[in-house]
Amino acid sequence: MVGHLDPAFLAVLDRVQERLAELFRIGDGLALPVSGTGSAGMEACLVNLLERGDRALVAVQGVFGERICAIVERAGAQPLRVEAEMGQIIEPERLVAAIERERPALVALVHAETSTGVAQPVLEAARATRAVGGLVVLDCVTSLSGMDVRFDDWCIDAAYSGTQKCLSAPPGLSPLAFGQRALERLARRKSPVQSWYLDLGLIGRYFGSDRVYHHTAPVSMIYALDAALDAVQREGLEPRFARHRQAHEALIAGLQELGFEPLVAAPYRLPMLNAVLPPYRDEALVRGRLLAEHGIEVGAGLGKLAGRVWRIGLMGENARLAVVERLLEALRALGRGA
Amino acid sequence: MVGHLDPAFLAVLDRVQERLAELFRIGDGLALPVSGTGSAGMEACLVNLLERGDRALVAVQGVFGERICAIVERAGAQPLRVEAEMGQIIEPERLVAAIERERPALVALVHAETSTGVAQPVLEAARATRAVGGLVVLDCVTSLSGMDVRFDDWCIDAAYSGTQKCLSAPPGLSPLAFGQRALERLARRKSPVQSWYLDLGLIGRYFGSDRVYHHTAPVSMIYALDAALDAVQREGLEPRFARHRQAHEALIAGLQELGFEPLVAAPYRLPMLNAVLPPYRDEALVRGRLLAEHGIEVGAGLGKLAGRVWRIGLMGENARLAVVERLLEALRALGRGA
Repeated sequence: MVGHLDPAFLAVLDRVQERLAELFRIGDGLALPVSGTGSAGMEACLVNLLERGDRALVAVQGVFGERICAIVERAGAQPLRVEAEMGQIIEPERLVAAIERERPALVALVHAETSTGVAQPVLEAARATRAVGGLVVLDCVTSLSGMDVRFDDWCIDAAYSGTQKCLSAPPGLSPLAFGQRALERLARRKSPVQSWYLDLGLIGRYFGSDRVYHHTAPVSMIYALDAALDAVQREGLEPRFARHRQAHEALIAGLQELGFEPLVAAPYRLPMLNAVLPPYRDEALVRGRLLAEHGIEVGAGLGKLAGRVWRIGLMGENARLAVVERLLEALRALGRGA
Repeated sequence: MVGHLDPAFLAVLDRVQERLAELFRIGDGLALPVSGTGSAGMEACLVNLLERGDRALVAVQGVFGERICAIVERAGAQPLRVEAEMGQIIEPERLVAAIERERPALVALVHAETSTGVAQPVLEAARATRAVGGLVVLDCVTSLSGMDVRFDDWCIDAAYSGTQKCLSAPPGLSPLAFGQRALERLARRKSPVQSWYLDLGLIGRYFGSDRVYHHTAPVSMIYALDAALDAVQREGLEPRFARHRQAHEALIAGLQELGFEPLVAAPYRLPMLNAVLPPYRDEALVRGRLLAEHGIEVGAGLGKLAGRVWRIGLMGENARLAVVERLLEALRALGRGA
């Protein structure tokens, strides 16, 4: 294991930062892996950009929007909720109207809501936020490298992701991007960031040219992320997105033949997270058999969707027709046996 | 990669929790790996146990005591500092007197101060804290599994460590222990824990029998920790501690022959972190050559000791006479060339 200040490792870190910036499509700002899972990246974005008493408008259409609200409250700020039923988007017009009315300091959107399989439209709300002087935080945990994420073009100010979704690296790091407006807000804070561990002012000095020690970087995880980013670069973003879409379409078609129904309307379905209503009386039993007999793990429903939906991931290396066919074969075999 | 709710992984997690409890020597309470580095464990202990306005007495004899003060302040609590020069312990009587005078809600001690190589006596201060109704938080980042840590016998209420020190696992997790008094304080809080990511009330539900999803556990890191804990168990704690002491004594003897002087008085020297004053005009140059020509990394001085001391780690797998001899040989070779 090399040290976290070893020149050999710092060269890898430089490359990871450059590749993350390309992946987020951020031109000018900070891109780095936070030393924690996607939820740590979520908390990092919010506690660095919010101060006590700030108002944050949160688009809540699933578990991860709820989590944002919980973190906003714990930062001493006030969440203003705009909601949709689980499985539906929040219509952009409704978000824009709320943003113009409330003029919040921050707007948080979940691009790919992992609990529902919904792709939330981002651009209109982000533009409206910028127009009222607010900052936009985008949750890209499940979308990054599986579908288009355009930090600069979409007027995003801060975004975070996870390594274990479409990057197909182990869980444990949260790729994060902070644009110039977010960095300026951070520099102008009146109070210190409540988390020392997640203080991007301090963390940025290690990831900047100074390489000032903050905490020990999780070296082996960053090597894993580097390898994952290398695979993304070799494939190319557009072919990678197309591969995710193709696998998704084959999965939905195959599942519909087996009696599954998609939870989400077609235009808003995520390719990498397929929320479907299974045709079984005992869905947990079939999921258990899939894992035990076929080595295939399917996500259970979260929150209000617990016991009702399956969440089938086709992320990164798994977004392939052969994987889809393996699952469909297993379901056909289980169906015959049931 | 198995999922973080996969039964195969949950069995590993159970085993890791049991082994961590044995390693901390905690009988009744919570032992788990926090999904972040040692500093995340430090922040977890403090933000779960402190509320705004609380007074926390902090024993500051190096960089990590300073870090504790910074986190106490960011939690809205008041740090009461008891200090010693870097390289010295804080005398137990002075700590006890301060604790009896101040009657703080929490006392934080750094068992093995990584910036100075000092082993801080713990028991007297911990007993005094318990006598005034306070909680004791112990930083065991560098000591755990390299020297005796006795959670219950020493009246500790919360402790944290790191995986990349004497456990010889990759950096990225923080083994943490919470005793019953700490869990009761957590349950009686008036305000929510300011960090959602580090909220041990929520995290404990995943690590408890419910296995309620909080954040995605860093699966591969936990497998690495399991392997490290397996190695500790096979060796046995006492032989492992003896091995660290033996390597340390050989190193100090060899270094003194080469003109190095130990920073710390003999009774308080850490075996795994040897802070020594090098006999070179340009210490950074020699450290650079050690790394480049011999593949040996020696820690630079931190804080006020920057440029003055070397911090030579003999941790976990590296605490062996062959490693000591390799370093001494390299120094002799460099000395001849200089």
